[in-house]
Amino acid sequence: MSDDVSLAEYRGAMIDVDEAYKVLFANIKPLGTEQVPLEAALYRTLAAPVRCDVDFPPFDKSAMDGYAIRAADVASAPVTLKVVGQIAAGSISEKALTSGGAMQINTGAPMPPGADAVVRVELTKLTGSGEAVLIRESVPPGKFITPRATYTSAGQTVLEAGTRMTPLAIGSAATAGATRVTVYRRPKAAILATGDELVEIDRRPVGAQIRDSNRHLLAALITSAHAEPVALTTARDDRESLREQILAGYRSDVLCITGGVSMGAFDFVPEVLEACGARFHIRKMAIKPGRPTIFATSPTGTLIFGLPGNPASAFVGFELLVRPALGALEGRPGAVPRGVRATLRGSVQSTTNRRAYVPARAFVGDDGERVVETLSWHGSGDSFGMAAANALIVQPPEMDAATSGADVSILLLDRT
Amino acid sequence: MSDDVSLAEYRGAMIDVDEAYKVLFANIKPLGTEQVPLEAALYRTLAAPVRCDVDFPPFDKSAMDGYAIRAADVASAPVTLKVVGQIAAGSISEKALTSGGAMQINTGAPMPPGADAVVRVELTKLTGSGEAVLIRESVPPGKFITPRATYTSAGQTVLEAGTRMTPLAIGSAATAGATRVTVYRRPKAAILATGDELVEIDRRPVGAQIRDSNRHLLAALITSAHAEPVALTTARDDRESLREQILAGYRSDVLCITGGVSMGAFDFVPEVLEACGARFHIRKMAIKPGRPTIFATSPTGTLIFGLPGNPASAFVGFELLVRPALGALEGRPGAVPRGVRATLRGSVQSTTNRRAYVPARAFVGDDGERVVETLSWHGSGDSFGMAAANALIVQPPEMDAATSGADVSILLLDRT
Repeated sequence: MSDDVSLAEYRGAMIDVDEAYKVLFANIKPLGTEQVPLEAALYRTLAAPVRCDVDFPPFDKSAMDGYAIRAADVASAPVTLKVVGQIAAGSISEKALTSGGAMQINTGAPMPPGADAVVRVELTKLTGSGEAVLIRESVPPGKFITPRATYTSAGQTVLEAGTRMTPLAIGSAATAGATRVTVYRRPKAAILATGDELVEIDRRPVGAQIRDSNRHLLAALITSAHAEPVALTTARDDRESLREQILAGYRSDVLCITGGVSMGAFDFVPEVLEACGARFHIRKMAIKPGRPTIFATSPTGTLIFGLPGNPASAFVGFELLVRPALGALEGRPGAVPRGVRATLRGSVQSTTNRRAYVPARAFVGDDGERVVETLSWHGSGDSFGMAAANALIVQPPEMDAATSGADVSILLLDRT
Repeated sequence: MSDDVSLAEYRGAMIDVDEAYKVLFANIKPLGTEQVPLEAALYRTLAAPVRCDVDFPPFDKSAMDGYAIRAADVASAPVTLKVVGQIAAGSISEKALTSGGAMQINTGAPMPPGADAVVRVELTKLTGSGEAVLIRESVPPGKFITPRATYTSAGQTVLEAGTRMTPLAIGSAATAGATRVTVYRRPKAAILATGDELVEIDRRPVGAQIRDSNRHLLAALITSAHAEPVALTTARDDRESLREQILAGYRSDVLCITGGVSMGAFDFVPEVLEACGARFHIRKMAIKPGRPTIFATSPTGTLIFGLPGNPASAFVGFELLVRPALGALEGRPGAVPRGVRATLRGSVQSTTNRRAYVPARAFVGDDGERVVETLSWHGSGDSFGMAAANALIVQPPEMDAATSGADVSILLLDRT
């Protein structure tokens, strides 16, 4: 970009991704919080810790199916003990175990008083008509007993604020008795497609028209981030139409604008955003695709992302900036994609002064190594060629071309 | 497991995971199909290909913002051309470009007749009051033009049957005009927790009671797999209560039973399943945790998974068997978790004759290498200690203990 560029909005230097994250996170405060039922908390982020209200386990429990015994009684095993009871999970033995006796016990059941170890069933054999049991091996005291409060004690925090409620975290919260949890509000993300050329996808495009597919791409991406997509009316390439929809977008936490941010004479987005009071933080990024990517904030605090209109740029911009921003709004700052190493199949071109992101397909090779394969892809406008992508190959600026076998860095995107 | 085991249901050998997958997939047929609106298709699986109804791009389009010119006119650049028009995306130039002229053009706009290349705006400068443009460099014919139908031609398949509808696939289908798509039906997966010891999570457990947390864990896991959880009434440890709920579970595509499948005297599940006509395919698996894992099929075709009652076993059993089964029901057979290499932080114990799965936390190290860190975890019953897990360390049978720095295989589970 040089002085030759006559459009006022193209002032400012390209900034790289690391710099962009500093700017981005410096401008994001977490949203408010709310209480939701545990069933509704999947993939939400805790805004307050979850504490367990009871000791867990709540009693000394058997860790095996077998027989509760006194270790001293089986010290010289094999030995035969009298079967004096059965303890299922859910029942408590009223009577204590006395010397010479054994009680059949289930995994998870409370140990009877007097017993100090469990012999697992595989090392036993019932004899006679079941009144006695042969214990084949000795066990030390404490064997296969999980003492009360091994996992946590009443009042202890079991899930910290900031935890994302994965299925395992949901299971933990359930164990702790948390029927409701305090989480950050789910971000609303408005989608504004712009361009006179756009028609609804149920229309067959004629002449210079193309289908408004980015709106659907972005809605799916926002949903995949567990945020709430808000559809705005597609704006024409005129200032008033844009202004109206931008102001409507200010009612959401995030506004994703696609198209209209490039250098073309009809790209009014930066100008109209400024007229709507937006403060610009990023005007151009040193990434390919996606140089004319905008990050701004509205007077109402809405995070505004201006993404180029081609699907690859919109996608890359979403994954690099919008998804991490949605995480930060939910109290997870710094949730940025991190490159992992992979072995390339196919080839990638050399890069110039911008970091390149190439949609590709990652999989696990037979030896457990990560492999990433390039797609039959015709460039930023080709949404079909990148449909199978689950990764982006990241090429630093000024990097040579690479071919099969090269060690490359990739961002893994598959969240299915 | 040996002849000493007196319980009839514990006949049969332990089978390993690879063998289990053969048995599993041999018993799964994809569900029926349905048409859904594209907005409802996220993460569903296509049962019929998506074809594009138009050429795409539908015209020769400009790949840059700049000037549409005739390459012959700029062969001896720098040269000044007369600006004879503007073409925005969405408009078509009625008039052809003739020699000596240039038309300002936007990325994505249709090329005017007569033009055969685009000079990008950075290499140009408007002169005078904008009637003329200085072209600084020559370009070859075809430069920055994406010819009509480069990405696909009308009638071509752009998404194959079997494709999972990721956000990128949704974007492709939108571009192709697919407002509705044919997908496999979403599997219904019923959850049956069993055990006299279980109380609802809103109750404070007393005596030998524990909270019924697995039901919540499994519902979240099923939801994370984009299937539909169906809650059944928790069954007591008696045959009639179990029978009633198992038969209710036969109305779903999948029935996950947790608890009651171990070797304890009160574990009636295998017996009652047989009485309900279930055909057993797997009775024990060579995995730790999760040896007493059951796979059976009902006379109605329901896939039945019997998972041990402790949360780690239920979780591992779900990830290893149930999630791939849900994929196969949706027409994605063979979607099994595959181990990737990682560097261990912490230590894991040696294994016996079973493959071990240890919940752990995977992340990307500073050098782009995968690292997996063990958790402060007290074993299969400890749902708190594994709440932060996003991976399972896989240890083959008869493997030595491993410590920090070891190269281990992990399954990545994080699907947030």
